[in-house]
Amino acid sequence: MPGSITLPAKVERIFNVKAERVLHPFSPLTEQEIRDAAALLRKEHSTVDLHFKCISLREPEKELMKKWLKEPEDLKPKIDRKAFVVFYFRRTPELFECIVNLSAESIERKTKLEGFHSCADGEEVLQIERACLDDAGVQAEIEKLKLPSGTIVLADPWIYGSDGVSDERKQWQCYLYTRPQDSPDSNHYASPLPISPVVDVATMKVVRIDQLPLGIDETVEDHKPYIPTLNEYMPEHQKTRTDLRPLNIVQPEGVSFRFSDFGEQLEWQKWKFRVGFNHREGMVLYNVTYDGRDLFYRLSLSDMAVPYGDPRKPYHRKQAFDLGDAGAGAMANNLKLGCDCLGTIAYLSFPIADDKGEPMMMNNCICVHEQDGGIQFKHTNYRTGKAVISRMREFVLQSIITVANYEYIFAFIFNTAGDLTYEVKATGILSTVPIDQSISDCPPFGTIVHPGALAQHHQHIFSLRIDPAIDGFGNKIIYEEAKPMDPEDPKNPFGVGYFVQQTTVDTEGGFLEAPENSRVFKIQNPKHINPVNNKPVGYKIQAPPFQKLLATEGSWHFKRAEFADKAVYVTKYKDWELFAAGDYTNQSRGGHGIREWCKRGSKFDTEQGDDVVVWVQFGINHIPRIEDFPVMPVESVKVHMKPVNFFDKNPALDLPPSTQEINKSVLVAVGGGAHHQGGVVEAEIGESGQVSGVHTTSGAACC
Amino acid sequence: MPGSITLPAKVERIFNVKAERVLHPFSPLTEQEIRDAAALLRKEHSTVDLHFKCISLREPEKELMKKWLKEPEDLKPKIDRKAFVVFYFRRTPELFECIVNLSAESIERKTKLEGFHSCADGEEVLQIERACLDDAGVQAEIEKLKLPSGTIVLADPWIYGSDGVSDERKQWQCYLYTRPQDSPDSNHYASPLPISPVVDVATMKVVRIDQLPLGIDETVEDHKPYIPTLNEYMPEHQKTRTDLRPLNIVQPEGVSFRFSDFGEQLEWQKWKFRVGFNHREGMVLYNVTYDGRDLFYRLSLSDMAVPYGDPRKPYHRKQAFDLGDAGAGAMANNLKLGCDCLGTIAYLSFPIADDKGEPMMMNNCICVHEQDGGIQFKHTNYRTGKAVISRMREFVLQSIITVANYEYIFAFIFNTAGDLTYEVKATGILSTVPIDQSISDCPPFGTIVHPGALAQHHQHIFSLRIDPAIDGFGNKIIYEEAKPMDPEDPKNPFGVGYFVQQTTVDTEGGFLEAPENSRVFKIQNPKHINPVNNKPVGYKIQAPPFQKLLATEGSWHFKRAEFADKAVYVTKYKDWELFAAGDYTNQSRGGHGIREWCKRGSKFDTEQGDDVVVWVQFGINHIPRIEDFPVMPVESVKVHMKPVNFFDKNPALDLPPSTQEINKSVLVAVGGGAHHQGGVVEAEIGESGQVSGVHTTSGAACC
Repeated sequence: MPGSITLPAKVERIFNVKAERVLHPFSPLTEQEIRDAAALLRKEHSTVDLHFKCISLREPEKELMKKWLKEPEDLKPKIDRKAFVVFYFRRTPELFECIVNLSAESIERKTKLEGFHSCADGEEVLQIERACLDDAGVQAEIEKLKLPSGTIVLADPWIYGSDGVSDERKQWQCYLYTRPQDSPDSNHYASPLPISPVVDVATMKVVRIDQLPLGIDETVEDHKPYIPTLNEYMPEHQKTRTDLRPLNIVQPEGVSFRFSDFGEQLEWQKWKFRVGFNHREGMVLYNVTYDGRDLFYRLSLSDMAVPYGDPRKPYHRKQAFDLGDAGAGAMANNLKLGCDCLGTIAYLSFPIADDKGEPMMMNNCICVHEQDGGIQFKHTNYRTGKAVISRMREFVLQSIITVANYEYIFAFIFNTAGDLTYEVKATGILSTVPIDQSISDCPPFGTIVHPGALAQHHQHIFSLRIDPAIDGFGNKIIYEEAKPMDPEDPKNPFGVGYFVQQTTVDTEGGFLEAPENSRVFKIQNPKHINPVNNKPVGYKIQAPPFQKLLATEGSWHFKRAEFADKAVYVTKYKDWELFAAGDYTNQSRGGHGIREWCKRGSKFDTEQGDDVVVWVQFGINHIPRIEDFPVMPVESVKVHMKPVNFFDKNPALDLPPSTQEINKSVLVAVGGGAHHQGGVVEAEIGESGQVSGVHTTSGAACC
Repeated sequence: MPGSITLPAKVERIFNVKAERVLHPFSPLTEQEIRDAAALLRKEHSTVDLHFKCISLREPEKELMKKWLKEPEDLKPKIDRKAFVVFYFRRTPELFECIVNLSAESIERKTKLEGFHSCADGEEVLQIERACLDDAGVQAEIEKLKLPSGTIVLADPWIYGSDGVSDERKQWQCYLYTRPQDSPDSNHYASPLPISPVVDVATMKVVRIDQLPLGIDETVEDHKPYIPTLNEYMPEHQKTRTDLRPLNIVQPEGVSFRFSDFGEQLEWQKWKFRVGFNHREGMVLYNVTYDGRDLFYRLSLSDMAVPYGDPRKPYHRKQAFDLGDAGAGAMANNLKLGCDCLGTIAYLSFPIADDKGEPMMMNNCICVHEQDGGIQFKHTNYRTGKAVISRMREFVLQSIITVANYEYIFAFIFNTAGDLTYEVKATGILSTVPIDQSISDCPPFGTIVHPGALAQHHQHIFSLRIDPAIDGFGNKIIYEEAKPMDPEDPKNPFGVGYFVQQTTVDTEGGFLEAPENSRVFKIQNPKHINPVNNKPVGYKIQAPPFQKLLATEGSWHFKRAEFADKAVYVTKYKDWELFAAGDYTNQSRGGHGIREWCKRGSKFDTEQGDDVVVWVQFGINHIPRIEDFPVMPVESVKVHMKPVNFFDKNPALDLPPSTQEINKSVLVAVGGGAHHQGGVVEAEIGESGQVSGVHTTSGAACC
C-alpha cells in the first residue's frame, strides 16, 4: 500500500485511464485509505461500534515537507501517508482522536478527549430529527398549537452553542417548522413554531423542551392555536419573468487551464498549485506559485462564527461555527453543470468518511472554470488616438455548502495580474424564529420577514488562514499607514505632503484594521529586494473592514469565537495549528484557539524572515431586510492578495490585446460617423541635443 | 424649433428612421440646438471671437419637472428648451456664463464671471503644447539635458492647481517627457524631464519655467545629461502569452433590454430610466424607476479630486478635478466593439460643443450591455436534495475617459435584485516625475517605478450625487449603527444582545462612515411603510470606507476639494447645485462647493419627507506599486444602492431558475457516480392537531 496505490474509481472516471499512482504528500486520502484507516481502528476496538466523525489526511510536518518540495526526486525524504481520525464509541460520550500511519499500518497516537465534542454528521442529524419528533412530550406540545389537519412538522437540528450551564454532554437544540402535506419543498422557515426540544446525542433522547419567547422579552406564554401561512421560494410558486434572454459563455478552443497529477495539480496562466479537500475545510490550496516563484504554502478558510444578537433565552446559545461544528467538506453541494457556473467547467470529486468509516464520494464538490473579469488595463494615447486594452481573465475554484437553512459560496479566484482573491457569498434562507403576530413593529434584535417569522440580527465572521511563502519561506508581516506630514514641518510648507508609516509585526498577536489611515497588511520577504526600487518583494492583503463581534467580552459567544475580535492575527507557524476557534468548536468554551495561542508571545525574526501564519478575518453584520426572504440574494465579501513590488512591472502586461477578432462581440445598433480626433504636438531633438523642430499632426481613430 | 425638431443625424443612424421628435425635457442638446445656442451668442457678440467652453442642456427646475412627470400628456406644463453656455472672449480672461432659451430664441441671462476659470478643451491643450515646445527658453532648458539625437520631447499639459500665489490668470503647467523618434506610441512617462513650463492661456506664452527637484527635498540642481530608457506598454513590445484561449459571450436570442424615445430611455428587467450625457459629467441617469415605483430623480458622478502628496514645490499644486477641470463627457473614449465589452453591445452617441460652438459628436461614448453576475440566490433542501438556483443578470452602462496619462472606467450597474451599483475602475498610466537615478530607495512620498521615474502618492476621491425619489419625492436620510446591548441590562443577561441605533439627519451637513459600528446610510420615504414589518421603505447606500483628504485643513488642496473630508454629505435640493467642488474648479480657491453650502444649515422635514440630495464620497489612496507601471491593472471601487424593506420579499424571486437547457455550459471532464443523498424525517399532523405519524424517506439528487 504505501507510496503506490491503485487508482481510485473517481480518478478513473475523470481521466479515463487506469494507472498506478504515487500519491503526493498533499493528496487527500483516497477511498481505500479511508477504508484502511477505519479498518485498522475497528480491529483495535473490535468490541465496540465506532462512530467516525472525521477521517482526513494528516498533513506532513512542514519542515519535512519543505525538504520534500525542494529536493530532486531521488533525494526526497520518504513521507508516510497518515490519517487524522476522530471517533466516538457509538452512543457514548467517549471521544478519541487518532493518528493512523497508513504506510506503517499502525496507530501512531490515540488520545481520549475530555471536555470536547466532535462535529455533526448527516446520519446523526437524521437521528436527532427522529428523536425530537418521536418524543411524546414534543408531540404533546405540538398538539397545543392546534395546527390544521395535514400539516407536516419538521425539526431542524441546530448546534447547541454553549452557555456553560449543564452542557457537558453533547446536545442539539431543534427548531420546529411546518409545511403543507403535499409540498415537500415548501419553505418551512415561514412558519416557525414556539417549541425547541433539546436532544442528548449519546442517548438520542429529548432531555428538555425549551419554550420560545414570542414577545420582545424572554417571557414565555401558553401556546395559542397557530395557522401557518406560506412564503415560497421554489420557482413553481412564482410567476417567473419571461423577458430575460439567455446569455451563454462559449470557449471555442476549450479552456486555458490544465490538470496534472490526477486532477490535484492545476496550472493556469503562470499560476500552479495543488488542490486538496477535507471534511472540515473543504477546499485547500497548497504550494501556490506564480511563474515558478513561491507565494503560499497553504490557503484555506479556517473557520467561521455566526453569533446571533437576540438576547432572549434560549437564543443566547445561538452561535454556529459551520466549519468546526459541521464541516465545509461534509456539507459541500454536488454541483451541477449549467446550474452553478457558466462556460466550460471541470468538476472535482473527493471522498470523505461517513459515520461508519466508509468512504463517501463528494461528487462535484469543487467546480473549476474561467471567467472574464472585465478590462484588465486600458490606455489611449490622446496624441495618436491609439488605445491598448487587455481583458482580465479569472480562474475560479468554487465550492458551495448547505448548512440546513443557509448557503455559502466559497471561491478562490486567480487573475491575470497576479492577484489571488478569496470570496464568500452568503445566500440561502434566514434562520427564523416565531414572533407573536400581534406585534407589528420589529423588535430591537431582528426583522419581521413574514407574519409570525422573525429573522434575528447576526454576524458572519470568517477567518481565512494564509500560510505564506512569498518568494520563499522566510517572511515577515508589516502594516503600512498613510499619514499626513506635520503642517509645521519645514519640508511641508504647503500642508499637502503625506507619507507611508511602516510598523513591523515582531510578536504574535491580533491587530485591527484602520481604513481611516489606509492601513494595509503586507507579507514581505525581507531577503528578496525589488531591483528597481529596493523595496522588499511582497503581497498585500486587502480585506474590507468589518464590525467585530458585538457580544461582550464576558460572554460565551466571545470566549468561543476566538478570532472574531481582530481583523488580522499573526502567529508563528506550528504544525496542525489550523483552526482559529480550536480543533473542537461544538459546545466549546474557548481557550483553545488563536486568542489563546497568541498568549505565547513568540517573537519573529524580522531580519531574516520567519515562518509566520496570517489569519485574516472578514465578515458581514446581517441586519435582515425583508428582501432577504424567502431566499436571500447573495451578499459578497472578498479578500484580495495582490503583489506589491513583487514583480518589476505590471505582470499582466503580456496579455494579448482585446480585439474583436477574438472577442466576437455583437452589435445591437451602431451610432457611426466621424471618429473623435486626437492630435500631436512634439518637439524633435537634433544632433547636438537642441530642439530641431516642433511638429503638429492630427490623430488617428481610437481602438 | 421649440418642441418639434428634425431628427438629428445620429438618431437616424441608430434607428434607421427619419421622424419628427418631441424632445424630452431631459434630452441632451441636439447638434442643431448646440449650433443655435452658439449662433445666438455670436450674433450678440458679433465683434469678438467667442471661445466656447460648454454648451449643455440647462435642466428644468425640479418643481416644474415634477409636474411635467406627473401630469398626463395634455396637462403637462410647457417646458422651454434651454442651453447652459460658458465662453471666453477668445485669448482674453473675460469669462461669461449664459442661459440661452432655445425655445424663445433669446438670451435669458448672461453673467460675467470674476475670479473663476473655465475648463480645458482639446484645442486649448494642443495650443499649450505648442506654446511650451516653441518657447526658446524651454528649448534652451531641454538642450542642457543633452538628450540623444532623434529623441522626441513631448509636453503633457497639466491642470495648474492653485497655491494662491499669482495665479489670478488662467495658467497651465506642463510636464515634459521623451520618446524615440520612430515610436509614436512609446510610453513617454518612463522618461520624465526636470522642466515644467507654465503657460498663460490668454496669451499662450510661457510665463515661467519651473525646475523640478530630483532629490528628496525641493532643492533644484543644474541639469545633468539624461539618457532616457524605455518601459513600453504597447503589445508589439511584449512577448504576449499564447495560452489564453478565447472566451465569448453569446446571446442567441438577443438582449433583454430595449430603447425607446430615440435611445434615451432604457428598459430592462423592471428598471426604467432615461440616460443623458453632458460635457462635464458624461453619463447622467434621470427618473430611475423599478416596477413603476420611483427610485431616483437624477444620478451622476458629481466630481472627483486627485490630490498628490508630494510636498516639494511645485508639486504642491498637483491636484486635478477631472470632471470640473476637463469634463468626463469631453474626454469620453470612442468605445469599440470587441475591445471594451463582451457580448451583445449597444452604443450611444451624444453631441457636445467644441471651442467654436460647433457640435462634436462623441461617438460610442456609452456602451450598454448585459452581463452574468454569478449566482443570485441558491438553496438546497437537505431533506429532498432539491436545489433552486437563479443567476444574477446585470445591465451595464459604461463610459471610459482618458485624462492625458490616466483612464477611468465609469459604470452604472443594475441587477435583477433591485440593486443599483456605481463602479469606478482606475487604470491607465501613472503620472510620473523625474528622480535622480542615484537615489536607490524610494522617497517618503512616492514609489520609483522605473529608473529615473517616480510615481507620487496620490488620492482619488469621488463624489457621487444621488438625488433620490424613493417611492416618491419626500425622502429622509438616516443612518443606523449596530450597538451592543449594555452587559448590565437585565434584558441582556448573557451579553450577546445587540440592537440597531438610528440617527435621523435633520440638518444639512457632512458625515463620516463608521465601519466599526456597521454604520449604514439609508434613504427612506417616511410616508410609505412596509406592510409586513412596519418599517419605512428605503434604499441603503453601501460604500467602502476610505481615507479622507490627507492634506491639512489650511492647505489649498483641502479648501478646493470641498467634498473630500466626509463620507456622506446631505443637502437640501437646490436647482443646478450639481458639482460638489463648485461650478468652476480650475484654479479654484474653495468656498463655492458643498462644504460651503452646508453652512446654510437648512433643516429637513423628517416627518413628511423632504427634497434631500445625498453626496456619497469614496476613493482610493494610491500608494503606487511597481506593478502599476507602465500601465496599471484596474483598481475597482463600488457604491451599492440596495433596497431595504422597500419590497415585501426578495425582488429577484421571480427569476427563472438556472438550468443547463438555458445556460448550455460545457463539461471538461466528468466525475460521475452516486449522488450525495439527503433524507427526510417529518411528523404529520392528524385531524385533531395531534401528531399522527413520523416518516423517514431518503433524498433525491441535488440540482
